Amino acid sequence: MTYAVIGTGAIGGYYGAKLVRGGHDVHFLLHNDYAYVAQHGLTVNSCDGSFVLSHVNAYSDTAAMPKVDVVLVALKSTNNHLLRTLLTPLLHPRLVVVMIQNGIGIEPDVEALFPDIQLVAGLAFICSAKTQSGIIDHQCYGQINFGNFSCRDEVLYQQLLADFNGAGIKAGTVDYLEARWRKAVWNMPFNGMTVALNTTTDRLLRHPSTRQLIHEQMLEVIHAAHSVGAMGIEPEFADKMIAMTDAMVPYSPSMKLDFDFHRPMEIDYLYSRPIAEARAAGFEMSRLSMLEAELRFLQASYL
Amino acid sequence: MTYAVIGTGAIGGYYGAKLVRGGHDVHFLLHNDYAYVAQHGLTVNSCDGSFVLSHVNAYSDTAAMPKVDVVLVALKSTNNHLLRTLLTPLLHPRLVVVMIQNGIGIEPDVEALFPDIQLVAGLAFICSAKTQSGIIDHQCYGQINFGNFSCRDEVLYQQLLADFNGAGIKAGTVDYLEARWRKAVWNMPFNGMTVALNTTTDRLLRHPSTRQLIHEQMLEVIHAAHSVGAMGIEPEFADKMIAMTDAMVPYSPSMKLDFDFHRPMEIDYLYSRPIAEARAAGFEMSRLSMLEAELRFLQASYL
Repeated sequence: MTYAVIGTGAIGGYYGAKLVRGGHDVHFLLHNDYAYVAQHGLTVNSCDGSFVLSHVNAYSDTAAMPKVDVVLVALKSTNNHLLRTLLTPLLHPRLVVVMIQNGIGIEPDVEALFPDIQLVAGLAFICSAKTQSGIIDHQCYGQINFGNFSCRDEVLYQQLLADFNGAGIKAGTVDYLEARWRKAVWNMPFNGMTVALNTTTDRLLRHPSTRQLIHEQMLEVIHAAHSVGAMGIEPEFADKMIAMTDAMVPYSPSMKLDFDFHRPMEIDYLYSRPIAEARAAGFEMSRLSMLEAELRFLQASYL
Repeated sequence: MTYAVIGTGAIGGYYGAKLVRGGHDVHFLLHNDYAYVAQHGLTVNSCDGSFVLSHVNAYSDTAAMPKVDVVLVALKSTNNHLLRTLLTPLLHPRLVVVMIQNGIGIEPDVEALFPDIQLVAGLAFICSAKTQSGIIDHQCYGQINFGNFSCRDEVLYQQLLADFNGAGIKAGTVDYLEARWRKAVWNMPFNGMTVALNTTTDRLLRHPSTRQLIHEQMLEVIHAAHSVGAMGIEPEFADKMIAMTDAMVPYSPSMKLDFDFHRPMEIDYLYSRPIAEARAAGFEMSRLSMLEAELRFLQASYL
C-alpha cells in the first residue's frame, strides 16, 4: 500500500521512515523542514538500529501528492484546524486516515469535517524526538496500536497491520474507545502535572502528596471512562501505570516540552474534550478540570 | 486590662501598638527583632495615621513577662509547636488567649495542650506588613472579629471588645465556627492558587478559567463548612468574596509571600485540617486537596 505522512516530526517521521525502509511508497508533508528534507532526506537515530534515507518523497503541499491508500496524521492536535485544507486533496472513496495523536474526541471531529472518511486511531507508545530538521532520535519503545473508528474496509485494515509489522514496527489492534481512554489515564495526570509543577514524572512520584494525587487523578479518568461507556478499564490499571512510570527514566511528557518551548499545549483534546464528555454523561472530573484551568492560565502567560 | 503579644510581626505588632496607644499595658515577645525593638521601640506607618512608640515592653522570653489578662497569639501557625513552651509561663486561671491566626482547627489544638485555657479566635481583616525590624506598614483595613471558642468569663470578653474599640480598632463578635470557615472561603482558594500559579489575585480573576476555578473552590469550601456544621454560609458568599477581591489592588496573600521568601507555608491549618475535618464528616474536598498536594510538592522544593 502507499502512504502519506502529514506531520513529519518525531512520530510521523519515525513511522514513515520505517515504512520506507520496509519497501513502501511513502510521501511526506513537511512545513519548516521541507527544504532540508527535500535535499538531505531523513536520518533516524534509533535504539533499534539507526539508518539514513538520503532521498524521500518530500512535499510542502498535499495538493502535489499522489492519492495514497493510507494517510498517517501525526500533527500536533493543536494544528487540527488545518486538516480540512490538508486532507481535501487526498480524499478518495477507499482512503483510510490514521490519527496518530493523543486525546479524546479526535476522530469524531475529523468525521464531522469529512463524514464518509474511514478513520482509525493510532496509539503510539514511543519515546522519540526531532532534534534537528530531518533528524529523528528514537530513544525507546515504538509500538503502535490501531483502534478502528470507522474503517469499513477490513482487508485494507488488516493490510495496514501487516505493513507496519512487516516494516519492523510492532503493531496490534485494540478497542477504539477503551484504548483512547486508557491512554488518557496516563496522559491526563502526567502531561498537565509536569507543567503545573514544572517538574518531571519521577519527581511527581517521589513526593507522597503528588504520588497520591496522581493516583486519584488516574482513578478520576477511569471513572470518567466508565461514565462514557469504556467499561473495561479496571481501577488497578492506575497502579500499573504508576508502576510503569516508576520504572521509566525521569521523563518530560510532550505537553511539558510544548510548555518549555512556549508552544501551544494540546489542552483541547487532552483535557477539555474528555472533561466535557464525562460531564455530558453526568460525571464531573473535578481534579482534572482544575488542572485544565491551571494549564489555560499558564498558557495565557506566554501565548 | 493588660496584654501580651506573642509574635510581634505585621499583625501582632499592629494590634499591640494600637493598644499601647490606647493606654494599655502591653508586653511584646520578639525573636529576631528583640534587640532592635528593645532599643528603638515600634514604628507604625498607617493609612489611619502613623505613630512611633519609642519605648515598648520588649521580651525575648515569656518567662520574663508579668502575668497578663489577655495573650494575643499572632505567630505564623507554622510555629504553633512552640506554644507549649511560650504559653506555660503565662498561665493563670483567668487568662484569655486570642488566636489571631488563619485556618481551621487552631483552637482545638491549643485546647488539647492546655485543656482549661479560655480561648478566643481573632479574625483579622487587615493588610499589613513588617518591612524592617520594628517597622510595621499598615496599608488598609484593620478590623478584627472575635469568635468565642471557650471563654467562660463574659465580663472579660466584653472588656476585650471595649479595649480594642477604645484603642481605635474596629472589633466585633462573630460565631466561632462559621467565622473560621467564612475566612477559609477566601483563604483556601487564593492563598494556594497564587502560589501554585505564581501570580496575584487580580490575574487569577482576570483569566476566565481560573476565575471559574476559584468560584468552584469557594463553593467546595462552603460545602465543606456545611458538612461540619457551619450551616450559615450561603453559596452567594462566594460571589461576594470574588466581587470584593475584584475591588482590591493586585494582592499577594501571606502564603504567597511565604513561598516567595522560601519560608514554611501554613499548609496544615489552611489546608490539611479543613480537608480532614470535611472528610471525617463525609465530604471530599477534591479540588482543595489537589491544591494541598501541589503546595506540599512546591514547599519540598525549597524547604
